[in-house]
Amino acid sequence: MEDSGDSFEQHVVIAGVGLIGGSIAAAVRQRFPTAKVTGIGRDVSKLQQARDAGLLTHTSCDLTPALFEDGPLVVVCLPVHLIADFVISAADVSSPRTLITDAGSVKASICKRLAQFPDAAAQFVGSHPIAGGEQSGFEFADADLFEGRTCVIVPPESHLKAAERVDRVERFWRQIGCIVMPMSAEDHDRVLALTSHLPHIMAAMTTSAVGAENLPLTGSGFRDTTRIAAGNAALWRAILCNNRGPVISAIDSASKLLSEFREALQAEDDSLVERLLQDARTQRISLPQE
Amino acid sequence: MEDSGDSFEQHVVIAGVGLIGGSIAAAVRQRFPTAKVTGIGRDVSKLQQARDAGLLTHTSCDLTPALFEDGPLVVVCLPVHLIADFVISAADVSSPRTLITDAGSVKASICKRLAQFPDAAAQFVGSHPIAGGEQSGFEFADADLFEGRTCVIVPPESHLKAAERVDRVERFWRQIGCIVMPMSAEDHDRVLALTSHLPHIMAAMTTSAVGAENLPLTGSGFRDTTRIAAGNAALWRAILCNNRGPVISAIDSASKLLSEFREALQAEDDSLVERLLQDARTQRISLPQE
Repeated sequence: MEDSGDSFEQHVVIAGVGLIGGSIAAAVRQRFPTAKVTGIGRDVSKLQQARDAGLLTHTSCDLTPALFEDGPLVVVCLPVHLIADFVISAADVSSPRTLITDAGSVKASICKRLAQFPDAAAQFVGSHPIAGGEQSGFEFADADLFEGRTCVIVPPESHLKAAERVDRVERFWRQIGCIVMPMSAEDHDRVLALTSHLPHIMAAMTTSAVGAENLPLTGSGFRDTTRIAAGNAALWRAILCNNRGPVISAIDSASKLLSEFREALQAEDDSLVERLLQDARTQRISLPQE
Repeated sequence: MEDSGDSFEQHVVIAGVGLIGGSIAAAVRQRFPTAKVTGIGRDVSKLQQARDAGLLTHTSCDLTPALFEDGPLVVVCLPVHLIADFVISAADVSSPRTLITDAGSVKASICKRLAQFPDAAAQFVGSHPIAGGEQSGFEFADADLFEGRTCVIVPPESHLKAAERVDRVERFWRQIGCIVMPMSAEDHDRVLALTSHLPHIMAAMTTSAVGAENLPLTGSGFRDTTRIAAGNAALWRAILCNNRGPVISAIDSASKLLSEFREALQAEDDSLVERLLQDARTQRISLPQE
């Protein structure tokens, strides 16, 4: 999936070296071993560990102009509620050639906040690589995490030179394995509310409905269905609360379907029960095999 | 997990050689290679294939007294709506030493129907090994499917010699790897409605809520959460419609939780959102690691 005809970034700065940031670092290090990869974080010993693990070539706990002298591509892999403020702070000390993107699961709330900071907005193109897992920490970093995964890019609406910046961000994600898909922030958030945020909520509510005393009688179906409910609650709070409207709509869609299914069962309309299950099955098996 | 002090069944008859029946056969063949394992089914070529695959030593498409001459243990692995009638037919031609059990995901509806056929009921002890997958067919049979899994046994309430029959069934499941748990049919059905039937419905409704056009923007979270929605719709219709009351109650529990979660989001009570996610997370991570 590499664009072998294009040169890669000379310097990639990753803010937040967790599962996603660490996997981006791993993908870059594996594919472009001469590129400089700087990790930014608050915890110097954690950064050092990630460097010792071969994920980073440089580390920093501070945002200084020196970091951005060579006009790097900056990927902000922080929890979604921290992304916009980081972009504002980074843009404040960065060089003109610096381009900032992110990996956050929500887009509109970030774009809305940045709209109040035109200088920062001018250096930013939002992204969302759709990859991850219920685990967190760079210890689970995977150089192939993005291989064949879709990465949504949100082209800015109102800035000069946007095309060049969008191209640069798209090229970056393609070079580490992604299939790039441009989308508006609002469309992204509405779709992701259904494809990612709703499954998390359904997994969590299914877990809570079962009750601790019944866990010994769960099997592999329960395990699969509820696996992502083990994800970090604070990170997910930030995602869901920064995409409130679309998430509420997604819950309403699911509640309506659940209620229709219940009515079919209650009315002993067993053919309808089967048809509703079959509709879901048809859709699920249309996904490419894992 | 084997009870090495106890001798194993000389002859195990398996009615319905799919994923579960095939895995029981595989477990018996691997652990007790001298035991006779007869597969019963409608499709002679499929039975022959299962025999060629080493799962069965004998096959039959008919229920004849000769099958039961040596007083085998019969395990009925048919779809749940067919189990009671099969038990009645088998008991009708079986020898007194024959003991019949099953692997169905519902228990009360089976016991209720058998209560009208005391001769059949006297030869039957219901079971439910909590193991399986979204795939079907003996091709996916796994000799270790039951290793460490809970198997619920439903001791009959009103028959003489029940203790001896219950012991025999318990020993069988332990010998192929299960941890046995006795339970009433009603308790089993109420708990399984939550731990197994509800997750299936939630997975199906999550899939349907997403919409086919949005599938390219799904990730691993969606895949895990909806995996079991790929299960056979007719089999699941039979399970859900034969456990109607408890399943409706389970849906109501989940709907209530979903509605509370929606209200917390709507009211911008973000601490409550996090607490509800954290409650689910705490419960999910309390499950032993896979």
